[in-house]
Amino acid sequence: MSMNAARGTRERLVVIGGDAAGMSAASQARRSKGPGELEIVAFERGHFTSFSACGIPYWVGGDVPERDRLIARTAEEHRARDIDLRMRTEVTEIDVAGGRVRARDVDSGAESWTSYDKLVIATGARPIRPDLPGVDAPGVHGVQTLDDGQELLDTLAATRGRRAVVVGAGYIGVEMAEALIKRGYEVTVVNRGREPMSTLDPDMGRLVHEAMEGLGITMVNDAEVTKLLTGDDGRVRAVATEDAEFPADVVVLGIGVRPETGLAADAGLPLGAHGGLLTDLAMRVRGHENIWAGGDCVEVLDLVSGQERHIALGTHANKHGQVIGTNAAGGYATFPGVVGTAVSKVCDLEIARTGLREKDARRVGLQFVTATIESTSRAGYYPGASPMTVKMLAERRTGRLLGVQIVGREGAGKRVDIAAVALTAGLTVEQMTALDLGYAPPFSPVWDPVLVAARKAARAVAQQS
Amino acid sequence: MSMNAARGTRERLVVIGGDAAGMSAASQARRSKGPGELEIVAFERGHFTSFSACGIPYWVGGDVPERDRLIARTAEEHRARDIDLRMRTEVTEIDVAGGRVRARDVDSGAESWTSYDKLVIATGARPIRPDLPGVDAPGVHGVQTLDDGQELLDTLAATRGRRAVVVGAGYIGVEMAEALIKRGYEVTVVNRGREPMSTLDPDMGRLVHEAMEGLGITMVNDAEVTKLLTGDDGRVRAVATEDAEFPADVVVLGIGVRPETGLAADAGLPLGAHGGLLTDLAMRVRGHENIWAGGDCVEVLDLVSGQERHIALGTHANKHGQVIGTNAAGGYATFPGVVGTAVSKVCDLEIARTGLREKDARRVGLQFVTATIESTSRAGYYPGASPMTVKMLAERRTGRLLGVQIVGREGAGKRVDIAAVALTAGLTVEQMTALDLGYAPPFSPVWDPVLVAARKAARAVAQQS
Repeated sequence: MSMNAARGTRERLVVIGGDAAGMSAASQARRSKGPGELEIVAFERGHFTSFSACGIPYWVGGDVPERDRLIARTAEEHRARDIDLRMRTEVTEIDVAGGRVRARDVDSGAESWTSYDKLVIATGARPIRPDLPGVDAPGVHGVQTLDDGQELLDTLAATRGRRAVVVGAGYIGVEMAEALIKRGYEVTVVNRGREPMSTLDPDMGRLVHEAMEGLGITMVNDAEVTKLLTGDDGRVRAVATEDAEFPADVVVLGIGVRPETGLAADAGLPLGAHGGLLTDLAMRVRGHENIWAGGDCVEVLDLVSGQERHIALGTHANKHGQVIGTNAAGGYATFPGVVGTAVSKVCDLEIARTGLREKDARRVGLQFVTATIESTSRAGYYPGASPMTVKMLAERRTGRLLGVQIVGREGAGKRVDIAAVALTAGLTVEQMTALDLGYAPPFSPVWDPVLVAARKAARAVAQQS
Repeated sequence: MSMNAARGTRERLVVIGGDAAGMSAASQARRSKGPGELEIVAFERGHFTSFSACGIPYWVGGDVPERDRLIARTAEEHRARDIDLRMRTEVTEIDVAGGRVRARDVDSGAESWTSYDKLVIATGARPIRPDLPGVDAPGVHGVQTLDDGQELLDTLAATRGRRAVVVGAGYIGVEMAEALIKRGYEVTVVNRGREPMSTLDPDMGRLVHEAMEGLGITMVNDAEVTKLLTGDDGRVRAVATEDAEFPADVVVLGIGVRPETGLAADAGLPLGAHGGLLTDLAMRVRGHENIWAGGDCVEVLDLVSGQERHIALGTHANKHGQVIGTNAAGGYATFPGVVGTAVSKVCDLEIARTGLREKDARRVGLQFVTATIESTSRAGYYPGASPMTVKMLAERRTGRLLGVQIVGREGAGKRVDIAAVALTAGLTVEQMTALDLGYAPPFSPVWDPVLVAARKAARAVAQQS
């Protein structure tokens, strides 16, 4: 007798993880099928559901006045839609053969099994926490969860010193540098790479480096942290590299995240080279008809390189959730993949990228030309026109767009969307030179910076073919 | 003996019109071929060359402090690049059979013939000046040329009254309304259409209407101007419609433009239904190997409707010039067409559109669904998140994107570029739901407004197929 038959005709969908991907999936499934047809049980081990982790730096920096603004939908709101959401309940085992999961009440420790007809794995990612002496000392903070954010704010409120060190210069690192500058701290960013923002090529990262220093942030590149030094009170007092020590009243770790896939690995589900679950285009875990996975715990297909990547980003998690919820409720939707778009800012500096960097292209055997141009966000004569640098990569011979990186001020970041669509559509840079982009003096020079870059890239393709 | 042989081996390129298209063509041709190979003669009947007509409203409104900021390249700068630019010289006849043009010195009246091997027609557009009583009275102004702008500014400086009437509520009309508001005028916009911005569907134009009234602009719709009333001093004193009179110390005509193609018509060159020259993809006048035309005097192919349109816009003129200059110098380039992108603003209201309106789609036999959504420019919790409305048209059955209209505040306008690229690439709205657009809280909600619109449109397609 199947599980389903045991419960009557109503199917049960079990969701592991109550954040963007999991709860989007649950909500979408509920929109498609009412509680008479589909029971939905969701497990979340933390205190919060459906929150914007991407918003934490802006809450810490004071742009967002209170934590609850970052919660898109509360547990109560989910329950009001007939989703049986069990907070502070951690799934500790997936029994694929038995079609059930074991969950533990975090507070009481009580465990029980819940059977499923369909399973969604949305366990997210965990921050990389380097195995360094002193990393667990008071005053050292990650910024992955709302609890992390609150703990950091509590530390800032209790700390008299104004010296902050951020370890890592990727998105989280630079956004936290901005947050701490806004809080009045002297900020040092210690970065392992040659330049900050290793998601850009170093020549573009250099522009970020210079702009961050212009904002009063001390950038230390090529620096590997060896330990965190603590004072007599046990609190962190400095960050040490091989060459130097950086005094710190507070340390923020912004080193990035890894897929949280221990549960999935234990259950024998397929993981990729980056440790994320592998799915098909309908977001089903490969080889499993009734198990889906999405959000920060999966790998996604990079449509430009043709290879799988791990990208932890709320916008992907939400899309995955929509696709999973539709499919789990018997509909049809797919997630075709990503082109690797990301946008960020440090104070008024906007940083964006999509597609492949030079080293990504080399790694997958693509030959390419590059073009870098400087232009402005608006007509040069219009107030507020601000400079931006656009770098474009195009495939040799075919001229197909491979990637774009933009560093500038207001109006620079979202221009990357032009390239994101062009990458999705497989346009060549020559085709891009004719794009009919919005022009008026307050919005763009008569040649949009992306068009200027495309023209230069097209010339380079013609010369090198 | 050919003209060319008579002058030796050096070819002569003659350009009629010294503004964006003509001088871009001349400059591009010069970059490709030096003066030893190619002689370039350009005729301009006005006082200025290569100026930004699109910038005039911002000069009048005071955002741009002085006229010369709008001049991208002066006559002297062109001459320094070995372009024989003859200012205040009007071409009065094209002798296609003889391969020559007749030009008249505007000041002296002297006429002479100049032979060409290759000809570029870039005669631009002329403002529609309605044949109304009083239209030539002092105080009534067009805003097509820098001279027009200076005359308007002189009138504003000499006028004590603060009542301005703008006739027309298209791009020029709404931009001039902003300029006059900024100059401290009470502004009334008299508009023939049901709503302002007839380049939008009326439901979206309604949003512009409401926002303009919120800015203190009086909008009068469904109103045909019948005459301009003058006072005892002969100056304009009011604008009259069938139903009402609107007192006016100054009147600005912003009714639009028509292709300036009298010369071309007299020469027997092919004109389209909108009065513009017809070219091939290389911007050659159809049926003529050695004559090119571009800018505001030509019709362009609308890639969405498959029909020719007339669009006077500097960004197209510049692209045409590049293509023409490349081809006239023996290279190869094409202008594939437009998708109809335009962006504008009235104070902080941003207005954008691309592709087809409902009536455009009907006119060319396309059946479609529409979806209109409201969202915000940034994550809802991030400071400065401002509302925007996005309307999307998709073809029935295929789901192909047909058009997008956006009305909102900061961050709304240039989002239309996402749709412009998608239209160029022929994406469906279902494909658009998966676009990997830049996301971070200061730049976008986790679902970009364009994605939200695409999702709603895709559902509508699925329901109506």
